[in-house]
Amino acid sequence: MAFLEELQMEGVASHFARIPMFPFFDLTHYMLSLMYLRHEEGICNVSRKSPITCWICSMLSCFGGAMLAAFMLGEPVIKPFESNINIVLATIVWYMVFYFPKDLFFKFCSLLPAKLIIVAGKEIARVRKIAVGVAHAHHVYHHGYIVMVAVGLAKGAGSGLIATIEQLLRGVWKPETNELLDMPFATKATLLGAVLFTMQKTGYVPISKELLILIITTLLVTIKVTLTIMHSHGSPLAPVESALCRVLFGSLPESSSHDEHKTGHGSGARAPEPGKQTRDDNEASLRKRKTKKAE
Amino acid sequence: MAFLEELQMEGVASHFARIPMFPFFDLTHYMLSLMYLRHEEGICNVSRKSPITCWICSMLSCFGGAMLAAFMLGEPVIKPFESNINIVLATIVWYMVFYFPKDLFFKFCSLLPAKLIIVAGKEIARVRKIAVGVAHAHHVYHHGYIVMVAVGLAKGAGSGLIATIEQLLRGVWKPETNELLDMPFATKATLLGAVLFTMQKTGYVPISKELLILIITTLLVTIKVTLTIMHSHGSPLAPVESALCRVLFGSLPESSSHDEHKTGHGSGARAPEPGKQTRDDNEASLRKRKTKKAE
Amino acid sequence: MAFLEELQMEGVASHFARIPMFPFFDLTHYMLSLMYLRHEEGICNVSRKSPITCWICSMLSCFGGAMLAAFMLGEPVIKPFESNINIVLATIVWYMVFYFPKDLFFKFCSLLPAKLIIVAGKEIARVRKIAVGVAHAHHVYHHGYIVMVAVGLAKGAGSGLIATIEQLLRGVWKPETNELLDMPFATKATLLGAVLFTMQKTGYVPISKELLILIITTLLVTIKVTLTIMHSHGSPLAPVESALCRVLFGSLPESSSHDEHKTGHGSGARAPEPGKQTRDDNEASLRKRKTKKAE
Repeated sequence: MAFLEELQMEGVASHFARIPMFPFFDLTHYMLSLMYLRHEEGICNVSRKSPITCWICSMLSCFGGAMLAAFMLGEPVIKPFESNINIVLATIVWYMVFYFPKDLFFKFCSLLPAKLIIVAGKEIARVRKIAVGVAHAHHVYHHGYIVMVAVGLAKGAGSGLIATIEQLLRGVWKPETNELLDMPFATKATLLGAVLFTMQKTGYVPISKELLILIITTLLVTIKVTLTIMHSHGSPLAPVESALCRVLFGSLPESSSHDEHKTGHGSGARAPEPGKQTRDDNEASLRKRKTKKAE
Repeated sequence: MAFLEELQMEGVASHFARIPMFPFFDLTHYMLSLMYLRHEEGICNVSRKSPITCWICSMLSCFGGAMLAAFMLGEPVIKPFESNINIVLATIVWYMVFYFPKDLFFKFCSLLPAKLIIVAGKEIARVRKIAVGVAHAHHVYHHGYIVMVAVGLAKGAGSGLIATIEQLLRGVWKPETNELLDMPFATKATLLGAVLFTMQKTGYVPISKELLILIITTLLVTIKVTLTIMHSHGSPLAPVESALCRVLFGSLPESSSHDEHKTGHGSGARAPEPGKQTRDDNEASLRKRKTKKAE
Repeated sequence: MAFLEELQMEGVASHFARIPMFPFFDLTHYMLSLMYLRHEEGICNVSRKSPITCWICSMLSCFGGAMLAAFMLGEPVIKPFESNINIVLATIVWYMVFYFPKDLFFKFCSLLPAKLIIVAGKEIARVRKIAVGVAHAHHVYHHGYIVMVAVGLAKGAGSGLIATIEQLLRGVWKPETNELLDMPFATKATLLGAVLFTMQKTGYVPISKELLILIITTLLVTIKVTLTIMHSHGSPLAPVESALCRVLFGSLPESSSHDEHKTGHGSGARAPEPGKQTRDDNEASLRKRKTKKAE
């Protein structure tokens, strides 16, 4: 019975893995990427003043993952731009998001039902990309575990990782934060997924790639859709991380526990180092500036 | 009669296309690039304190386009440095521009007649480089239109595009501006040229490559020489751009037209976004600092 | 007699060149790189808050040279991560340096006798890496002298050169300084070594590569160990540089010699250019801010 069930699952998984990404899932990926970009400070100004810069930043948001993966593997970073049909699709989405009359397209996509579909589609595309990235890296470096994880991570969450460069192109510079320092849930999940696919590829996870894709996709879509409905930016991984950090990197200075109680962050213990003060100072000055602007 | 004329033009074009770039046109390219670098704030200080840094920045100015194109196509970024004779030529120009007794070389090149020859030579070299870049990209990606345009643009105007990195190497950081955000005329013309060469390569422009080189070169040299004589930094493309922007990205917020009237820029309408204020604030503080220094 | 002596030297050199880098010399390289990183401002905070970022920065410190060389030559920048055994070794060192109970490991390594061994080992590894880098570049570009020097320099001192990127990953941004602008002795020695190896490779230095490795290693280890014992950050090359700069780039404005006398730096003449003031202004404002914070 269990055997039959598994067979059926395998069948579903293999069917699922054969669904092509283009056009629907690619479309949702472009839409969500550009909707995030649209929320960025100052981008609307750039979209009026310099549409070319806006378009280039948009393409970096859409194809950044593929470009980062290509850079890591010494392939042409411009390779993702070879596929004209994808470029055209992304360009149409870019035009609709930034220049649609009365901004109706962006407003429509921001409605919860539409957004849920887009988020779900994007996560399905993400998992497939991680799998493709790991497989590609495995093809080049058969035993490079770190390489596989890194390329999978880049493919799945690359746009976020190169956001600093994308911001720089449009004249915004925020060196004090990046997605490595302050990983959002999606990036953490991508990292975890890349580790799992790498383990599958090297034989440490005894299930088929198709089944793994199905499982991770189901999990990720469920979680992201739930988070979107709840308007939450929290991470379901936080308790696990916190415990893991305590065990692995736990020998904290005594004062750190005080600090943790005081701040009540709980997402990993902090040590009050001299460097922290600088950061805090910066944050304080940033906050001040923002307050000023708001006035 | 028209047929014979065309034949003659083709003959001239094919002769023109066979003129080698080395040494004269390469020389003018190095001279103009380094003269622009010499005008940069703080570079003279760097040239005294750290000649090696100055030399590296100079090489980035001279070979930046080739390096950027190589980076895009996944080739060794250091490939342009393989050609010893070009490096020696650029190094001699670097030495003359920065360390010539009493700065006579720089002063001589800055005289109008000398500068006109250098500007003309540089534009001739630029058009040839765009054509080479597009052809190279076409060789790698037969149908990658965007790739061809991008590589052509990089080859023709790459030094400007990577100026942010070149500045960073000598300790100057200006994230709020770059040549993408605020394209000078030369970069725009390069982009247009890259588009035309790409169209020629893919059969949409029914004239020979040689003739296209001749036409674009004639236009570009004429315009740049005129602009140099008039000491103008304006762009003859501005009205076309303005109209095009209005048609393509025209659905501006109502307030934008007011804004435009007020500022009177005319080079594309601006929307007063919250992000803009930040930029303006920065610019204001920059201006203040400059004024202070001048005192 | 001299012939016999030389034979013996060649034998020693060839034996020395055959000592494998792994594990001891690689280990000392990782240890010193991470000890330097550990001294950086704010890194301890990052190591608590985001161990992954800390690990990535550590790997950049350990393998930055190989990555930079790979980038220059158009090879996969992630190639150094293919070697699992090296990654494991570096990761163990990383864990010990940042998370050892009561920080005993770091304190032990910072003791003078331990540090001297680590410094000596690191310099031995460095010279070998320069030789490997030059040989690799020579293999790709037979006559690219600059390429050979650049790749040798990158291999030997790359971690320092990409420190700006490594800092950026952990949210620290110091554009006003980098190792090119303000070369420490080790980087200068690496550059000199790369030039020598390039000359040997192209036949201008008539001794064997093994002997050259032995000579440069002996010199470098002696100097660095001496500098470490003396707690000095000075450079034994300063007088040579100063003289060389005076001859090559000597046409300084008259005031420069005054300036030099006044500041008494002696490490290369400085010209009081308008650009310098900016830097000085920045430094002054930085110092002010620091003072403020200290209060």
